[in-house]
Amino acid sequence: MRATVLHAPGDIRVETLPDPDLRDDTDAIVRVVASCVCGSDLWPYRGADHAGEPRQIGHEFVGVVEQVGSAVAGVSPGDFVIAPFTYSDNTCALCLKGVHTSCVNGGGYVGCQCELVRVPFADGTLVTVPGEVDEAMLPHLLTLSDVFPTGHHAAVSAGVTEGSTVAVVGDGAVGLSAVLAAKRLGAATVIAMSRHEPRQEVARAFGADHIVATRGSEGAAEVSEILGGIGADAVLECVGTNDSFKQAFRTVRPGGTVGYVGLPHGVEPNIPVMFYTNRNLAGGVAPVRAYLEDLLPDVLSGAVTPGDVFDLTLPLDQVAKGYQAMDERTAIKAFLRV
Amino acid sequence: MRATVLHAPGDIRVETLPDPDLRDDTDAIVRVVASCVCGSDLWPYRGADHAGEPRQIGHEFVGVVEQVGSAVAGVSPGDFVIAPFTYSDNTCALCLKGVHTSCVNGGGYVGCQCELVRVPFADGTLVTVPGEVDEAMLPHLLTLSDVFPTGHHAAVSAGVTEGSTVAVVGDGAVGLSAVLAAKRLGAATVIAMSRHEPRQEVARAFGADHIVATRGSEGAAEVSEILGGIGADAVLECVGTNDSFKQAFRTVRPGGTVGYVGLPHGVEPNIPVMFYTNRNLAGGVAPVRAYLEDLLPDVLSGAVTPGDVFDLTLPLDQVAKGYQAMDERTAIKAFLRV
Repeated sequence: MRATVLHAPGDIRVETLPDPDLRDDTDAIVRVVASCVCGSDLWPYRGADHAGEPRQIGHEFVGVVEQVGSAVAGVSPGDFVIAPFTYSDNTCALCLKGVHTSCVNGGGYVGCQCELVRVPFADGTLVTVPGEVDEAMLPHLLTLSDVFPTGHHAAVSAGVTEGSTVAVVGDGAVGLSAVLAAKRLGAATVIAMSRHEPRQEVARAFGADHIVATRGSEGAAEVSEILGGIGADAVLECVGTNDSFKQAFRTVRPGGTVGYVGLPHGVEPNIPVMFYTNRNLAGGVAPVRAYLEDLLPDVLSGAVTPGDVFDLTLPLDQVAKGYQAMDERTAIKAFLRV
Repeated sequence: MRATVLHAPGDIRVETLPDPDLRDDTDAIVRVVASCVCGSDLWPYRGADHAGEPRQIGHEFVGVVEQVGSAVAGVSPGDFVIAPFTYSDNTCALCLKGVHTSCVNGGGYVGCQCELVRVPFADGTLVTVPGEVDEAMLPHLLTLSDVFPTGHHAAVSAGVTEGSTVAVVGDGAVGLSAVLAAKRLGAATVIAMSRHEPRQEVARAFGADHIVATRGSEGAAEVSEILGGIGADAVLECVGTNDSFKQAFRTVRPGGTVGYVGLPHGVEPNIPVMFYTNRNLAGGVAPVRAYLEDLLPDVLSGAVTPGDVFDLTLPLDQVAKGYQAMDERTAIKAFLRV
């Protein structure tokens, strides 16, 4: 099969690798229909988190089941499925608590920007999309493998509910998805913090009531002014740097919660300030599987169109262009038709 | 009036100071009936957080209103009142969000281990106890000024609700109060982590289902074993050291929340581990005023007896003995009859 391989920082190639095989009787092999590039893929692409050896990359995909192990009962060859970006058995004590990312049998795929993926614990992991899937629905369904539920997780973790005031730090695809998710959960006011015109437009289309283009204490003051003098009930941190964390904690009101989903790098929260002001920190790597029953119907009905975060479509062979465009911020998120 | 003054680490004295006067028309002067020594008072007593100059100390009290300013309408001379350990106007945007400790007009008292206290924003701060207050009820009512609502805040912040599994780190008065609060909120299982027999007894009386006397990863493993193989949904951190934080994060399950109310000193949470396991951190200095309407009826009815944390009663003149006993852990909490 063709597969995307990261050789070294900045060096992304499509190569021919052996097809994956069924290994355990709970496995499925899925033929990838669409994949994409994640902001978190940019960390190793830029040289952080990279182990040195060439390796397959990518963790988001939708596709059609090609083969299943003898113990797989929930999905069949021919099914169109959404694959959460980690696999999980959906039966262990932690899955039952909704933390599928900590499944005792869980883990990550070898790589998904490719043609075929071996999915362990297929019954626990894959969610079948009922009926025919047309081409126009692909981007929206693909977001369910990571980016939309990740934005949703930021909002859920931060306690966003009917009437909440929300600010979103980060205008990447996750931040924009967080805007959409917060609005979907009934937030009264959603403020997107963004300095980039094309991203501001998506944020507005996703329901942002206000755009704040300033940062630092000036940006926090602007949010506070919009909200009548106090910070936001919930701030959704969708970047993962220490600067973006500082921005998030400046922007959330005392007693509020920062919901964070950006892979943290060098983050050092100020615990005494958090303590004296009751500013909370919740979130982490999104347990996508836990949210799919809730989110899928709204995607299928068109109530939300999370696939609008994709502004660049490429064939798999040109995946390197997708990395480059996202790295240079000329694209929000690259969709790969496989 | 007589008042407790901290002169230097370990040097607590009762001295005669001028009586406080009404300063603003929203003030009240309250004659203290009972006060007590808080675990957080031990930090300056032991030499941490001490500014150097002799200063009044103590922040918990109940008493009888002696005098009110011309703008005070909610309390009158003769009323028996509970004073939350910070004052607040109870009308600003942050008080309305339930974060009275961040009240825009709020602050702390000069000191409360004394005979008379000036209470700013008396209407917003003080809560009148209806009817006659008998001597036996004093300790229970006094806990409402800080320690019981602080334990309650740990539980609320950690999301304790009907059916939760809970572990409590810290067997001081706050930790024991957290046991009581968690049980009152309907926790299915409460595990008190304590190595001290007399404190274990109070924990059991407050509803702890299990006592775990080990610490570190061994203690966390014991909690996990009790709970069927995963950590607790909620861990209530009631100490504030980096060691106790580590214990709390070891003991909470992935996706669970550490509710912290121990004044943090040198705490450095492991953000990457928190992120990958969705372990959350919530809490801070307890907004006592927000909880009094909820907690007071259960204290008055005897449904809970939070004053059982007091195991040493002293007259104000012997306050130094109270500090010494708590510092040496020969007493859980010292009650001062003024």
